[in-house]
Amino acid sequence: MGARQLKGRPPADSAVETTHVVLPPDTNVHGTAFGGKIMQWMDVAAGICAGRHCGGPVVTAAVDELVFASPIRMGDVVIIRASANFTGRTSMEIGVRVEREEEGTRELEHCLSGYFTFVAVDAKGRPKPVPPLQPQSAIERERWRRAKARRAHRLAARRT
Amino acid sequence: MGARQLKGRPPADSAVETTHVVLPPDTNVHGTAFGGKIMQWMDVAAGICAGRHCGGPVVTAAVDELVFASPIRMGDVVIIRASANFTGRTSMEIGVRVEREEEGTRELEHCLSGYFTFVAVDAKGRPKPVPPLQPQSAIERERWRRAKARRAHRLAARRT
Amino acid sequence: MGARQLKGRPPADSAVETTHVVLPPDTNVHGTAFGGKIMQWMDVAAGICAGRHCGGPVVTAAVDELVFASPIRMGDVVIIRASANFTGRTSMEIGVRVEREEEGTRELEHCLSGYFTFVAVDAKGRPKPVPPLQPQSAIERERWRRAKARRAHRLAARRT
Amino acid sequence: MGARQLKGRPPADSAVETTHVVLPPDTNVHGTAFGGKIMQWMDVAAGICAGRHCGGPVVTAAVDELVFASPIRMGDVVIIRASANFTGRTSMEIGVRVEREEEGTRELEHCLSGYFTFVAVDAKGRPKPVPPLQPQSAIERERWRRAKARRAHRLAARRT
Amino acid sequence: MGARQLKGRPPADSAVETTHVVLPPDTNVHGTAFGGKIMQWMDVAAGICAGRHCGGPVVTAAVDELVFASPIRMGDVVIIRASANFTGRTSMEIGVRVEREEEGTRELEHCLSGYFTFVAVDAKGRPKPVPPLQPQSAIERERWRRAKARRAHRLAARRT
Amino acid sequence: MGARQLKGRPPADSAVETTHVVLPPDTNVHGTAFGGKIMQWMDVAAGICAGRHCGGPVVTAAVDELVFASPIRMGDVVIIRASANFTGRTSMEIGVRVEREEEGTRELEHCLSGYFTFVAVDAKGRPKPVPPLQPQSAIERERWRRAKARRAHRLAARRT
Repeated sequence: MGARQLKGRPPADSAVETTHVVLPPDTNVHGTAFGGKIMQWMDVAAGICAGRHCGGPVVTAAVDELVFASPIRMGDVVIIRASANFTGRTSMEIGVRVEREEEGTRELEHCLSGYFTFVAVDAKGRPKPVPPLQPQSAIERERWRRAKARRAHRLAARRT
Repeated sequence: MGARQLKGRPPADSAVETTHVVLPPDTNVHGTAFGGKIMQWMDVAAGICAGRHCGGPVVTAAVDELVFASPIRMGDVVIIRASANFTGRTSMEIGVRVEREEEGTRELEHCLSGYFTFVAVDAKGRPKPVPPLQPQSAIERERWRRAKARRAHRLAARRT
Repeated sequence: MGARQLKGRPPADSAVETTHVVLPPDTNVHGTAFGGKIMQWMDVAAGICAGRHCGGPVVTAAVDELVFASPIRMGDVVIIRASANFTGRTSMEIGVRVEREEEGTRELEHCLSGYFTFVAVDAKGRPKPVPPLQPQSAIERERWRRAKARRAHRLAARRT
Repeated sequence: MGARQLKGRPPADSAVETTHVVLPPDTNVHGTAFGGKIMQWMDVAAGICAGRHCGGPVVTAAVDELVFASPIRMGDVVIIRASANFTGRTSMEIGVRVEREEEGTRELEHCLSGYFTFVAVDAKGRPKPVPPLQPQSAIERERWRRAKARRAHRLAARRT
Repeated sequence: MGARQLKGRPPADSAVETTHVVLPPDTNVHGTAFGGKIMQWMDVAAGICAGRHCGGPVVTAAVDELVFASPIRMGDVVIIRASANFTGRTSMEIGVRVEREEEGTRELEHCLSGYFTFVAVDAKGRPKPVPPLQPQSAIERERWRRAKARRAHRLAARRT
Repeated sequence: MGARQLKGRPPADSAVETTHVVLPPDTNVHGTAFGGKIMQWMDVAAGICAGRHCGGPVVTAAVDELVFASPIRMGDVVIIRASANFTGRTSMEIGVRVEREEEGTRELEHCLSGYFTFVAVDAKGRPKPVPPLQPQSAIERERWRRAKARRAHRLAARRT
């Protein structure tokens, strides 16, 4: 069955929000959140988003342009938002944004972002078609366009 | 400064939603989610909610009527929602509800709930007043009433 | 087979003692033991106690009146004692008491307590009868009476 | 102050018992308990015992004759007992015995044992004298004799 | 002090090799290694490499083109190699390659790779100059060239 | 099939090197690396080495003369090297050496060492013959000789 026959879904249907607090086991020797742990949290949030979009199991295929903008400290409340940017035939790009919440003021500060690509798999682990993503707003269409460019760049990078 | 002088806040202001996926380290020998780990996730979500309400650090004071209704399995996406039910002078009762999401259908199943009481503390760990909670809807007022009854019951239980 | 036909057992037969030391991964941002982690330790100790009483697998059904009386600090030696208070047809209430041991003097300080209810399950996860608990001493009979009252209260709370 | 002036203590004063259940994160790829994790549990139990004997902080100095006799499986209840065998001027040898409890019958099976040596340290991490251990029974005196032989063997091994 | 005055270093000086075995806590619900955990291992190896190159603390700044080529299974021995590809004034790009070793044959299979960028920081967390990397071989010069292109692409991506 | 018929292998063929950094969850209350955690890392490195030598699964059988020479601190880069010292019919002794790397100078400091014995097992967990180790250099022959003496000592210790 081709992906075109699967019913399309808007990004809002699979969006994920998750909230963490940075505890001592999540920190590095500087007393800030350990980068590897935050990446793990992002991978989980992105994987839930991809699994919701395609309605079944997924595996991580790639991570791109993960950029750390501002440090996260011990005790910080961290909010991770993941939403689908783009779908190929069997793959999905999920954008993940991580913010910290200032205690008291509740002001949000952008800390890092990245793009996670997942592939939908069947019970034997083989890639299978995913429902097409249907961007609804101008910003969602822009995200689609940029994700498509990243994918072209990634495929080109592998060929060189 | 008395709690009465602190500006009241509605429950929606501090509500927390967090999403997990049950991985092998979160399971017990039956292949279902380990009760102790789920309680830990609930405590974190409830603590973030209490910290948001009072705008500073909090410590867990009590857990009541934590009831496991339905098992959570490995691989399940789990959604935890925490919101404030009641405030005393220095304490806050937070209700926590845990649901699993059926893969594919996205249907939610209620798995467990519980009530977590936190106390706001100053830098030296001494209790300090919290802003009064201002229930807005009928259901929020009902939650307040029941939380108040639970607290009376808990205080009575300690005296016997 | 009805529970009445199972041979009764005194609380001492299934009592559990376990000793921990609070290491950095067990702490929160205040440098004290993380509430969620202590609850996890209590759940394990209580589950071992319940499993010993019924001689087979159990699942957590409820947690009640878990009260934090005094903080536990990093490096503290923590002693957890769990013993059965009450048995229903397929359920068991286990009382858990957590104390910290003062370094040097070995004096014990009560830190928190709680009541954990477990249900005995067969290989398919269905509830199965448990041996009746046979309280021996006055204090054990008093624990039975109070646990029975808590259970009545819990069942009543669910109906409202 | 010399160790001779410190009041002697019998082994029973510092003996430690702790109870674990083997959960999925504690297992290896064979589905049995991971050796490294059991050693960690033994080190914690032995360290608590040494800390109780000397009444202050200790650091691990050596592990000897740790022998795995029988495998521990996922879900097993594990009982670890640690007690002091021998004291030098600043060091203590702690014997640790690990048993699994057969579900249902509660029969104990010996799984592994080992000898952990700790050194008492002051606030700056320098070795400091420990109270002399006072073996009371024939078996405790035999443990002392054997521990002393192990220590002689260990010191000899370092010189070769 | 400008980076030009720091003594240059060849990639071999800071290369890191580390070996892991995939245990149950490192797996996902498919029984293969959890992507988030592998990323964490890569981040640690890359961070050690960057710290060796600059001789002091570093923080993760970006992750690019992390591509999963082949799954890693429970029990697999995993070899992670990290070496410096490029240095800017205060940043370093580290290439990380992850391979699994076939049991018995010891054959290596490429599983995933990625590029981690770190920034050297002083005691106050401010960026500080790093020694220039001095590629020695043709392949090291080619890695430098490609890393430089990735960096240009990344900076351009941020401006759009 | 007897071990004599298996093709011999030099120690270099199975040698393992692994690199860690000590993060907060790896520390104890003194801010140094937790002994139990380091032992776990050593057990993993030694197990990989033994598995490489025999080309199949292994289980930990004994740990001997594990001696802590110098403390490891939070943030330290730790290098663990494991290589085979001796083979019996179904067992292998693996020597493990742990060093910390001084930041900046990259000087290595010896921190602890120990001897881990593993037994090769078949699919049912029964011991099976291992290829004979073929020491090549004078130091490897010396290691064999000492390992053989330790084994004789260990067997003698069990008989007393």
